Amino acid sequence: MYGAGDVRVEQLPDPAIELPTDAVVRVVRACVCGSDLHPYHSMPASEQGTPMGHEFVGVVEEVGSDVVKVKPGDLVIAPFAYFDGTCEFCREGLTTSCLHGGFFSTAQAEAVRVPQADGTLVVAPVGEDSALLPSLLTLSDVLITGYHAAVMGQVSAGSSVTVIGDGAVGLLAVLSAKRLGAEQIILMGRHRARTDLGREFGATDVVAERADEGIARVLELTGGRGTHAVLECVGHRPAYDQAVGTVRAGGVISRVGVPQYEEAPIGFGSLFGRNVRLAGGPGAQRAHIEELLPDVLEGRIEPGRVFDRTVALDDTPAGYTAMDERTALKVLVRP
Amino acid sequence: MYGAGDVRVEQLPDPAIELPTDAVVRVVRACVCGSDLHPYHSMPASEQGTPMGHEFVGVVEEVGSDVVKVKPGDLVIAPFAYFDGTCEFCREGLTTSCLHGGFFSTAQAEAVRVPQADGTLVVAPVGEDSALLPSLLTLSDVLITGYHAAVMGQVSAGSSVTVIGDGAVGLLAVLSAKRLGAEQIILMGRHRARTDLGREFGATDVVAERADEGIARVLELTGGRGTHAVLECVGHRPAYDQAVGTVRAGGVISRVGVPQYEEAPIGFGSLFGRNVRLAGGPGAQRAHIEELLPDVLEGRIEPGRVFDRTVALDDTPAGYTAMDERTALKVLVRP
Repeated sequence: MYGAGDVRVEQLPDPAIELPTDAVVRVVRACVCGSDLHPYHSMPASEQGTPMGHEFVGVVEEVGSDVVKVKPGDLVIAPFAYFDGTCEFCREGLTTSCLHGGFFSTAQAEAVRVPQADGTLVVAPVGEDSALLPSLLTLSDVLITGYHAAVMGQVSAGSSVTVIGDGAVGLLAVLSAKRLGAEQIILMGRHRARTDLGREFGATDVVAERADEGIARVLELTGGRGTHAVLECVGHRPAYDQAVGTVRAGGVISRVGVPQYEEAPIGFGSLFGRNVRLAGGPGAQRAHIEELLPDVLEGRIEPGRVFDRTVALDDTPAGYTAMDERTALKVLVRP
Repeated sequence: MYGAGDVRVEQLPDPAIELPTDAVVRVVRACVCGSDLHPYHSMPASEQGTPMGHEFVGVVEEVGSDVVKVKPGDLVIAPFAYFDGTCEFCREGLTTSCLHGGFFSTAQAEAVRVPQADGTLVVAPVGEDSALLPSLLTLSDVLITGYHAAVMGQVSAGSSVTVIGDGAVGLLAVLSAKRLGAEQIILMGRHRARTDLGREFGATDVVAERADEGIARVLELTGGRGTHAVLECVGHRPAYDQAVGTVRAGGVISRVGVPQYEEAPIGFGSLFGRNVRLAGGPGAQRAHIEELLPDVLEGRIEPGRVFDRTVALDDTPAGYTAMDERTALKVLVRP
């Protein structure tokens, strides 16, 4: 990406092992993320482009001398962050705060160098022609992000939940809330094809209105109380304000949309007076991938349904355009 | 209070039963709260004064016809909020969000009308000459507020905790964190007499520095990580900023100081990027009083040590002055 709206596909040197803990993975499927649209809208133009992409499944081509858990030929899922799996944060499950970790940013490509390969890569027992690849790819980001929203929102049997945003993360937050036993799931979104998929994933109600009108509708649907959890899957400030308006006293606002704002109301009138909690953040927790993988492999969930377009690597710029213009929900990239 | 710095003691008509769920309680001990200092600093002058006070223990004088759980002669503790104890929020333990509740505001007085007496009042099996009265009075606000901070901060065995503020709530947050098993308790405060009491309550470290210097000290004491929980017991914006700087990735900032600000940073750089959670709010949970009461009655904790001055009701204005000038930590009012 050379600036807002300017995505180019270029030939670069192949990645290679640099450290003994590295692996090189040939990308089988990658995709474009909703969060990639933020720089697509706002990145200043530059001479030197920025590599893009942080979601991929692929086949291990080569491993460094310290790597023991994955081997060449394995089909692997890479979460959007890498981590060693052994530091104090990883041991507590907060792999996105790994002391030796970082975020991928070169996955819309033919191959990726994966640092901390043993901690990061999760082997999936399928071939590279598997029909499950799109669903497995959601374990790289969108599904585990939606699941992180639901877990941090403490969704459990009988919960009432509002999901803000009908993008791929929002729809998979619906699926996640359903999987955790939520009773009422209100999806706030206004794109009919998307909210229809949301209903299939488990939404019990859809609210197309936004801002105060949307808040009023959610309150109507909840006896004036709001919901125990609000999963904010957008990242813009109006979505946060909707969350504050729709959360129940004592409830949790769980954010996984990357905030495009820094300051927001958290005082007596917004959070404090009603003991509302705020949670969330980057959600690439390895434990969530391992927990959800059997559901994907055994077909109990089909998160890959969020992909509604596939492009070749050379057509990645068209993928950005389609997501930006909302003619595609989520674009799969096939190198 | 007739405006900032203007506290007067006046004769008013005695409170009386107005609803069948009311009780009238003769106040045996009341006190001045750190939160009373906020209007003491900023209340616009008015012709018509505002009654003050929300913490008291007293003796029931009269009850309405629906009251069955307390009777005349009972010595009772009144949490700073009243609640029916039966609505959906009370049943979940969030008594401060009771559908028929509210906050006391007339307790610096000889007697108080208590709405929802059955839900609100907790009987203490002591006489009105008991030496335990100061400690019992802390169950009205400061102790249960400090305890709420620790509970919402998810403090448990082995936790590391930073407590911001060496006022009475902060010191009792230290005591609460200790009671819940915290291993490291760093008290941020610079009033030696207070932090000494904090050490007796369980603080393992005291940091007198503030702002960036204070944050640097806490990070030094925690191997650069910060603490699992930060209990923010002040309510001013710099205290929030200190909390953001001292909390560990994946940790919780739990606020019980009434926020004197509305907007504050919650974006990628402050909370989101490190999955830091924000919790807290008004803490008059009846369940906490019932949980802590035996510890007070049996002398396992002595929270009443935060009272370091006693005034007669007529001298309440001097109590405000002493707390404002920090010559007293917390002032007991004895009608």
